[in-house]
Formats: sequence, C-alpha cells, structure tokens
Amino acid sequence: MDAGASKSAERPIAVFDSGLGGLTVVRQLLERMPTEDVVYLGDSARVPYGIKSARTVRDFALQDAAFLLRFDPKLLVVACNTASAVALDAICRICPVPVIGVVQPAAVRAVQLAQGRTIGVIGTEATIISGAYQRAIRALDGSCRVLAAAAPLLVPIVEEGRSQDDPIVLHVLSDYLHDLQRARPAVLILGCTHYPLLSDAIAKLMGPEALLLDPGQAAAERIQAHLCDSGLLSARSSGTLRCFSTDNPERFARVARRFAGREVGEVAWVGTDELAACLPMVGGRGAQEI
Amino acid sequence: MDAGASKSAERPIAVFDSGLGGLTVVRQLLERMPTEDVVYLGDSARVPYGIKSARTVRDFALQDAAFLLRFDPKLLVVACNTASAVALDAICRICPVPVIGVVQPAAVRAVQLAQGRTIGVIGTEATIISGAYQRAIRALDGSCRVLAAAAPLLVPIVEEGRSQDDPIVLHVLSDYLHDLQRARPAVLILGCTHYPLLSDAIAKLMGPEALLLDPGQAAAERIQAHLCDSGLLSARSSGTLRCFSTDNPERFARVARRFAGREVGEVAWVGTDELAACLPMVGGRGAQEI
Repeated sequence: MDAGASKSAERPIAVFDSGLGGLTVVRQLLERMPTEDVVYLGDSARVPYGIKSARTVRDFALQDAAFLLRFDPKLLVVACNTASAVALDAICRICPVPVIGVVQPAAVRAVQLAQGRTIGVIGTEATIISGAYQRAIRALDGSCRVLAAAAPLLVPIVEEGRSQDDPIVLHVLSDYLHDLQRARPAVLILGCTHYPLLSDAIAKLMGPEALLLDPGQAAAERIQAHLCDSGLLSARSSGTLRCFSTDNPERFARVARRFAGREVGEVAWVGTDELAACLPMVGGRGAQEI
Repeated sequence: MDAGASKSAERPIAVFDSGLGGLTVVRQLLERMPTEDVVYLGDSARVPYGIKSARTVRDFALQDAAFLLRFDPKLLVVACNTASAVALDAICRICPVPVIGVVQPAAVRAVQLAQGRTIGVIGTEATIISGAYQRAIRALDGSCRVLAAAAPLLVPIVEEGRSQDDPIVLHVLSDYLHDLQRARPAVLILGCTHYPLLSDAIAKLMGPEALLLDPGQAAAERIQAHLCDSGLLSARSSGTLRCFSTDNPERFARVARRFAGREVGEVAWVGTDELAACLPMVGGRGAQEI
C-alpha cells in the first residue's frame, strides 16, 4: 500500500439519515469494521423524510451530503432508505467521493436469497411510491414477483419507544403485513432504518419461512468489500463515532443507544441553515455509486 | 369608520401551521367570517413540529411568520399548537401586527366551561412537555386540576387518512385516553390541529360528560371579537383563501379538503430557504398578543 492510499484509508466514512434511524446502519458498519472513523449526521429538525415529496427529500439530502463532504470522507453512505430511493443520482452528481445507498445492496442480496421466489418490501410512503426497490430487484431478476407495502406508522411507533410486544405495535404490524403474510415471500426487505428495531415482532408475524433482510447489513457488507478491494480499510486500532444532529443534541444522544447499540458520546448541533450554506461550496465533480 | 381603518380592514388574516392541520383553524375562521381574505402557510417540508425541540420549532415558526408578513396582514394567527406553546413570545417580538395563538383562547374557554372541575389536555410531545396549556389554565384558575397527556401517534394516524372507526385508531386512542377517562374531566382540550378530525371517536371514548374543546374554534371566536371591536372586519361580499406549502403543493391541495372542509384551490410552493431569507427583513418592532 503506498503512502497516499494509507492516508486515504484513515479518512472517515460519512453517513447521513433523516434522523436517528441511520444509526442502525452505523451499528452494522462498526460491528464489521470497528477500526473505522464514522461521522454521522441526523437531520432530526426535518425528520421524517418518508412522508415528503421526492423534490423536498432531494433538496434536504443534497444539503446533508454537502455538509458531510467538509469532513473529507473516503466514502459517503446514504443510510436513509427514502433518500437512497429518490436522491442517490442527485447526490452522486455533486459528490467527489464514492457514494453508497441502501437500496441497491439490499436488492442484490434479496435476489440472491430469494432464488426466484417472491420478495416483499415494506418502507415509508415515499420509498414505496418511488418504486426504487421494485425497479432494482426487477433489473436483477426480471421475473421476480415483488410485493411492496407502505407502513407509515412504524417510524413514529419506533420513535415513541414502544416495545415489540406492545399490543398497538402488533396490531399495526398485522394491519400492514396482512397481504404480505398471504403472499408468503421468501425474503422481506425491512426498507426503513427504523424497522430493524421491530424485527422480532415482524419475524413472529411473517413466520420462519420469510428471511428478514436489513438493508443496513447488506450495505455494510458491500462497504467492507469495497474498502478491502481498494486498500482503504483503516489500519487504526480503534475508530471513533462523531455525531451531528440538526435538532436537540441531548435528546439525540439519549435515544441514540437504542438504534446504535452503543453509547454515541457527545452529539453536536448543526443548524439546517448551515447545511444549506454548504451546498453551493460543493464542487460538483461527480462520483460513482459503489 | 375612517378611510384608514377601512383600508386596514381589507388586509388579509395570515395563518400558519407546521402542515395541513392548521386548516381546521381556517375552517373555523371562515365559517364565522366568510368575507375575510386568508393567506395560509403550511410548512409541510419540515412537518411535524410536535416531536422537535422548542429551539427548532421557534426557528421554523419565526421564518413562517416572517414569510407571511410579506402579505401585510392585519393579524397573524399561529394555528399550530406546538408553535403557540413554545414560540408565541418570540413571534410577538418580531411582528408589527397583532398575533394570536391557540393556547390562550382555549385555556380561557376551558376554564369558563369547567367551572372549577378537572380539565384534560391532549397534545404533541412538545406541546405537553412545554407546560404551556397547564400554565395558561392555572394562571386563570390556580386551583384547577389539569391532566395532560402526549399523544404522538395521532398526527401520523390522521395524516395517513384512517377513518375514525378504524380499529387501530380506537386502539391507539384508548391507550392515550386511559388515565383521562378515569379522571372524568369536565373539558378535554384537543391540543393539536389534527385532533378535531378524530373528535367523534374521542367523544365516544370520553363519554357525554366531557366537553371536547377545539382550540381553533376558541381562537376563531377571539379573532372575530377582536376584529369587530377594532372595526377591522372586512366589508367585502366574500373572501378568498390563498395557500402556500413548503412541500408538494398538489398533495397539499388534494388532502386539504379533509382539514378545511372545502376545496382550497391552487396551492403555491415556497421553499424553506425562501422562508429563512424573509426573517432578516422583518423590522422587529414588536406587537401585542391579542
């Protein structure tokens, strides 16, 4: 490995999400690559993205990406399924570093696991309406049957902190999963960063035949392979996690544990006006999706 | 009435909310005062406010107010309960026209109706945590028992379009209203603009002894009295409603009917960056709350 690559390898991995949910992706990253530095931005002041138009999500996601580019990352991870579904091309166009979303890695893994059988997807309204998962899966396996369902209440239910055996959680899940249960998919993609926190309850309702797929895990595996292939894995003994939130950083730090599976330490506040101000400074050289 | 007052009377009433919910307040206004022009701003790109910190809600609310001041209104109505609870003083400081929120009129009306008996309040997390309703009620009747409960899922449930007899709606309401049912309040304040759309279901659960109070109605009555007393009621034969949204205006127009009880016509898009740009242009002369 030459000196340039070594220096490059010690740059952080940048990750953003509409709020706390993307910390489930960070959790997957750090379990596999504990020596990596991660810079995380949660846009909690404008959360959720999943009920908003593609145009608005794109505007916000570009600002999030522009802010993170300040940290000279070696890779930008779009942890938010909604932003991955509607804004990835736009982000790639402004980013001078490789970009990875969660939709494409999950689609690849789902097709591998399903082997021609039905694939189910649950996600936010914006993710499902965009058709991004459906398109990505069909591009890999044109004959695959894909059944997608929007599940708008699951994000606020997780944010409220309800446990997986709460009767309301089970009632709402039964409602959303009704058609999917009957379709008996081989794989069910948990197409929102919040849903892994409900995976036990979802597994119980879907039965043992349906494999639950966390896009954060699929993305983390792809990132590890990419960094390994490019000689960009950090050689540090341990990495750090640095978090920014556009809303109340104390609340963010308090609730983050449930999503990240660890303490996240001090969280810094950054205003949405500061994010917006970063955008015109981005070179717009264009990058590849990995 | 002199010529100045007459001209003044034909200026619009400006109303803002975090999204669509404030149209329930507009509905109350136009039922009483159909000759008034109303300019409405829904900050749908950053909705909801009720799960966010007071600081963030204040920042957004000031931008919303600054945008509406462009229309030279005779009055600014803060239709959002959360913004009324945490941002009204800040808005009054920058506004050159009278400002009215929904908390104070509702508190006055609740105390009148309760006559010393218990008052219940349901609202967003931010509204309930702020203690604004509790303080306003106790300032009017120091011995009044106030029982407040946050009901975070009700906003997304209404936004999802579930009907009032949907089993999930009833299940969630039963959960939130459990302690309030036992306390048998004389009045229950529906402390969020979305809740009037669930009033039949709430009434059924609370029983006939609890009067449900819509703060939008209390605010509309206060506004009518103020305009009448100041000689500022419009003398037009009919008014117009002009709506702006920071997110998808087509969706806003489509869903608005449920909240406004009428078609709202064409909705114009305005970016949140444009709202932010309005703030530095506000004089900051300071106004009174009516």
